[in-house]
Amino acid sequence: MQSVRAVILGFGTVGQGIFNIAQQRRAELREQHQVELVIAKVLVTDAARAGRALPEGFDASLLTDKIEDVLASGPIDTVFECMVGAQPAYDHVRALVQQHGCAVVTANKVMFAKHGAALRELAGAAGRQVGYEACVAGGVPVIKTLQNMKLVQHITKVEGILNGTTNFILTSMRTNPGKSYEATLAEAQAKGYAEADPYNDVSGMDAFSKLMILSELAFGAQPAWPEVPVVGIQEITAAKVAEASAQQQRYRHVASTELVTEGGQRKIVASIRPLLVDAQHALYAVEDVHNAVAVSTDYLGVVTLMGPGAGMYPTASVMVEDWLTFVQQNKLKSGSA
Amino acid sequence: MQSVRAVILGFGTVGQGIFNIAQQRRAELREQHQVELVIAKVLVTDAARAGRALPEGFDASLLTDKIEDVLASGPIDTVFECMVGAQPAYDHVRALVQQHGCAVVTANKVMFAKHGAALRELAGAAGRQVGYEACVAGGVPVIKTLQNMKLVQHITKVEGILNGTTNFILTSMRTNPGKSYEATLAEAQAKGYAEADPYNDVSGMDAFSKLMILSELAFGAQPAWPEVPVVGIQEITAAKVAEASAQQQRYRHVASTELVTEGGQRKIVASIRPLLVDAQHALYAVEDVHNAVAVSTDYLGVVTLMGPGAGMYPTASVMVEDWLTFVQQNKLKSGSA
Repeated sequence: MQSVRAVILGFGTVGQGIFNIAQQRRAELREQHQVELVIAKVLVTDAARAGRALPEGFDASLLTDKIEDVLASGPIDTVFECMVGAQPAYDHVRALVQQHGCAVVTANKVMFAKHGAALRELAGAAGRQVGYEACVAGGVPVIKTLQNMKLVQHITKVEGILNGTTNFILTSMRTNPGKSYEATLAEAQAKGYAEADPYNDVSGMDAFSKLMILSELAFGAQPAWPEVPVVGIQEITAAKVAEASAQQQRYRHVASTELVTEGGQRKIVASIRPLLVDAQHALYAVEDVHNAVAVSTDYLGVVTLMGPGAGMYPTASVMVEDWLTFVQQNKLKSGSA
Repeated sequence: MQSVRAVILGFGTVGQGIFNIAQQRRAELREQHQVELVIAKVLVTDAARAGRALPEGFDASLLTDKIEDVLASGPIDTVFECMVGAQPAYDHVRALVQQHGCAVVTANKVMFAKHGAALRELAGAAGRQVGYEACVAGGVPVIKTLQNMKLVQHITKVEGILNGTTNFILTSMRTNPGKSYEATLAEAQAKGYAEADPYNDVSGMDAFSKLMILSELAFGAQPAWPEVPVVGIQEITAAKVAEASAQQQRYRHVASTELVTEGGQRKIVASIRPLLVDAQHALYAVEDVHNAVAVSTDYLGVVTLMGPGAGMYPTASVMVEDWLTFVQQNKLKSGSA
């Protein structure tokens, strides 16, 4: 039995989901993969915060608000990073990789969009990998699918609905004709689909981070950030939605990145904007909080993946999948598989 | 530079696609994967057949109609099997694995539905793998996605549109109100979407093989074949389609396999039949010759994959992907990655 010691940075919905899954799948991990996942330390913002809800079976003494405690918590094989924002998440993960040579599994799209390339290089130098399936489209396996496609396919375009909040709002405005953007946003907030401060979602900035990650994976590079138009959904009115419906069209908030050739030069052209799509479009049928990604390649044409874009278990479970993939690959390397 | 010698069994559309892709990607395989794919022999039914169309750059002296020539063609690392029917395909592949210890990549759903478990065991005993992504839903990466999901998810149901011919016919009958099944089938044949003898597709037997493969992957077992109802689309009339359209419903030819618990016993319940689905259904939007698979798991809910279900390049390219995955894993094993 191999014992893998891991730490979790950030213990909100996703971080707690990882702990829960490790508990729920303990017997299967042992029997099917001969591995035990031991959570050695959990970093939170304020370890002494009163009234904190913790998962059943969680040992509160694992909590700390000091990264030094995490770094000093014995040998660490894997860091599950579920924080918000590029910093201090990146500094924390970097220190862990440098001091422990650990593998990284992250759900932090803002951190990874900005520092993903450097982080993969750093981990690679330590002979380790970075899993980032959870950064884009939650439980939809777009990262692994693209990684595999890249072996043979030339990817020409990736477009998707990468934010469940905006898709919920646009869907709800269409299925409730006359309902205003503001009233629908309030409904989304009441249902827990939108934050109290909805700017990041409705402006397209959340989708922007995800799109940059997809660009880098599909094309090996990101476009220059200031050149990417990012248009939110705030200007979509009930009247515009009604007009679209009359034409059998739907508004979708589409993030798109494409490889184009201009004057013999290959260039990545990306954008995030509300688009009117008709029934022939791959994203027409993607409703409510779902995410979807349509990938175009030379040999395949278009392949579309659709599913849950967020949530404790979709997101946390693909992080545990990332980790288990690394466990399997390490077994191949060590000849124990 | 690693040189990998492979043979191709069956040189129809898919077999020729593999050869073409190997040619088109030769430089990339060398530069990015340090590997050269050498086609050592190609098995066809009648090597002397006059007027055969061969891909550009193909050396006709590689053709043989004797499996003995294939078996004697020097060391063989990989067999690409693109034949039709369980036999003699399975005997050929088995002989190759036994005598050469080769990896197998197959597009032959009938062979794999029947002999997949035995073949994987045989290859496993030789330390090799079997790739069968191309057996189900052509270019849609359902096999690799399920393999990865199985690491953590409990898969509860897999349902899909696994045959492009029947989906084209049902789509065309709906978009051309009043058009009969017979006239639409004739149109599909004229377009090359249906065979001269369409039985295998329209009866559901083609989808049946694919569904058995999905069952075995998702649940570790196939249901007893005689217990699986297989209903074709031959009884769908223009009048039935009109009635469905009036209710905003669509006919889909749905292959479904599900894990149910009856009296404390886990049981696989599978069927193939025309279903009426409404706009909320994951397969409602899948039109024309497309294939789609919706996978339900405990942590993810439903994830849907959609794309090209057939064709030279979609099918052949996922076979080359399977092969390259094995090349990468072998590098991990040998420590050269």
